[in-house]
Amino acid sequence: MPRRPTIADVAKLAGVSRATVSFVLNNRPGVASATQQRVRSAARELGWTPSSSARALSTGRARAVGLVLAREPELIGTDPFYPAFMAGIETVISETGDGLMLQMSRPGSEVDTYRRLAADRRVDGVFLTDLRADDIRPALVAELGLPAVAVGAPGAGAGLPTVNLDDRPAVGEAVRHLVAMGHRDIAYVAGPDEFVHARRRRQAWTDALAEAGLPEGTLLPGGFTAEGGARATRMLLERPTPPTAIVYGNDLSATAGMAVAQDAGLRLPDDLSVVGFDDVPLASFTSPPLTTCRANPVSWGRASAQALVELIETGTTADVELEPAALVVRGSTGPVPVRGDS
Amino acid sequence: MPRRPTIADVAKLAGVSRATVSFVLNNRPGVASATQQRVRSAARELGWTPSSSARALSTGRARAVGLVLAREPELIGTDPFYPAFMAGIETVISETGDGLMLQMSRPGSEVDTYRRLAADRRVDGVFLTDLRADDIRPALVAELGLPAVAVGAPGAGAGLPTVNLDDRPAVGEAVRHLVAMGHRDIAYVAGPDEFVHARRRRQAWTDALAEAGLPEGTLLPGGFTAEGGARATRMLLERPTPPTAIVYGNDLSATAGMAVAQDAGLRLPDDLSVVGFDDVPLASFTSPPLTTCRANPVSWGRASAQALVELIETGTTADVELEPAALVVRGSTGPVPVRGDS
Repeated sequence: MPRRPTIADVAKLAGVSRATVSFVLNNRPGVASATQQRVRSAARELGWTPSSSARALSTGRARAVGLVLAREPELIGTDPFYPAFMAGIETVISETGDGLMLQMSRPGSEVDTYRRLAADRRVDGVFLTDLRADDIRPALVAELGLPAVAVGAPGAGAGLPTVNLDDRPAVGEAVRHLVAMGHRDIAYVAGPDEFVHARRRRQAWTDALAEAGLPEGTLLPGGFTAEGGARATRMLLERPTPPTAIVYGNDLSATAGMAVAQDAGLRLPDDLSVVGFDDVPLASFTSPPLTTCRANPVSWGRASAQALVELIETGTTADVELEPAALVVRGSTGPVPVRGDS
Repeated sequence: MPRRPTIADVAKLAGVSRATVSFVLNNRPGVASATQQRVRSAARELGWTPSSSARALSTGRARAVGLVLAREPELIGTDPFYPAFMAGIETVISETGDGLMLQMSRPGSEVDTYRRLAADRRVDGVFLTDLRADDIRPALVAELGLPAVAVGAPGAGAGLPTVNLDDRPAVGEAVRHLVAMGHRDIAYVAGPDEFVHARRRRQAWTDALAEAGLPEGTLLPGGFTAEGGARATRMLLERPTPPTAIVYGNDLSATAGMAVAQDAGLRLPDDLSVVGFDDVPLASFTSPPLTTCRANPVSWGRASAQALVELIETGTTADVELEPAALVVRGSTGPVPVRGDS
């Protein structure tokens, strides 16, 4: 029995992209009528029938995309990234009435989770977030035939379409901004090292200090939490020579750090400069307003969803590199204090 | 052709509850063997087959529960209630590997959304949140045969099992706490009136003022946002006689309000007392730490998921009334300032 014709065969014969074939055969608007005719006659000639894959995609669709998080459930409520990222996804899929299937998975049981999602087409595709260097998921989704978009971590996606937003330039910018105002002792309060984005931000601080010709700075863990940010700040301020500036892994730990410094009688930014990361809604309404890095996880979610929908509908999508995170200078950073002043 | 026997017919003949029939036919432990036998022979006698509904529930399960939000997608990222509520749901369903299907719906197109979810059993049950007094959804899910749990709003669920957490007692407590310290002019910065919980908190403030024998207080909208909280606070402080205390609809608007007051040169709580709502992670780490109301939306989500899973598996579940929200007194509230002092 000869092989059944695929959408790729139709595309080749008609001399158009697979996306165009899919658009035409699913009666979507926006394709010139001459092209439509060429596609339809190629489909007829090859005997392409609605039971083949493109049709299955269009009518047998689960009408849902999946997001598997291999972390503790509490994360959704505490790390501001995921709620904003999910909001961005929803702006795209709510247009078509699709749902977002959210699934928690213990690290180690991810394979089962993806297999279950792929079985019976419970989702049409998945977002892969928090990718690791040796991640098994790209190969797994390929084996399962599950369309997938890698979020961040270009290179770790093993050939998957990737939507990336680089958060390093903003951290480098923050360090240069502080150095330009005379700071030499710039500490860092980092997020948990198991998060790719936490490590990446911390590395950007390390690199920027080296580029400025400064010695290694003091690094403390802040856990991306208010409690962790407060504790790290207390430890930094108790040092014989406290840093004159502190860069934090996120706004939550930075805001708590500001409160600790103010409780200790320091004036911001006169006695201490503080930089956050995220630009949460509160950041422009602290006292003083927080200098921070804006990464826009909503736009990241939106772009990722657009890429995944295109991949599901057409079988292909291009890599997307979003505008990198940028420094937003507000009132919590200022010139280095003159030592021996107080 | 005679009607196919249902699980209710089997339950009636065996003289047990439908839940017991479901347990036995799904081979779940914990049913006495005499009862098991009675159920199995009733099923045989009636010709009940695995293709009827109980079987569909056990093996044809979607292994997902649904949450439809008839709001803007941005909400997920800004209102701290939903991320925490979803985290609570996930602590329960992640145990069984089930997923949470999140769906955005424009107000008005909810009927279509629920119909689509019920068709082909895309979810096994749904949470109904933000219930209104004249809500059509309880009747809709009943018509669709979709198990549903009403979250909050007891009375509006029209007979659905309800999981409720009363956030009013904490607001009343906050007002009494302020009145006990001499405050008489206690303003309120409210969340959006279309949210049931926003209206309920605002009403609790109104009621508590009346109970304390005080005149109506000043009410301003704060939108549950930092920007709205800052704007309302500025307007309150510009009045010829500003209030000596402000109660806010949530912590985000309260924290922004604190910053506005401090920028205006006020000392907290000496010149102004501030109360929030939520007890977000940052609340104990602002300067001064924020007096607020703790409602625990994580436990709300957990209890709602437990109720829905029980309803799906057994056909019945009891109403749950959680511990009401409670006032957490920290440093942002203090004795009323002596007028004419400054």
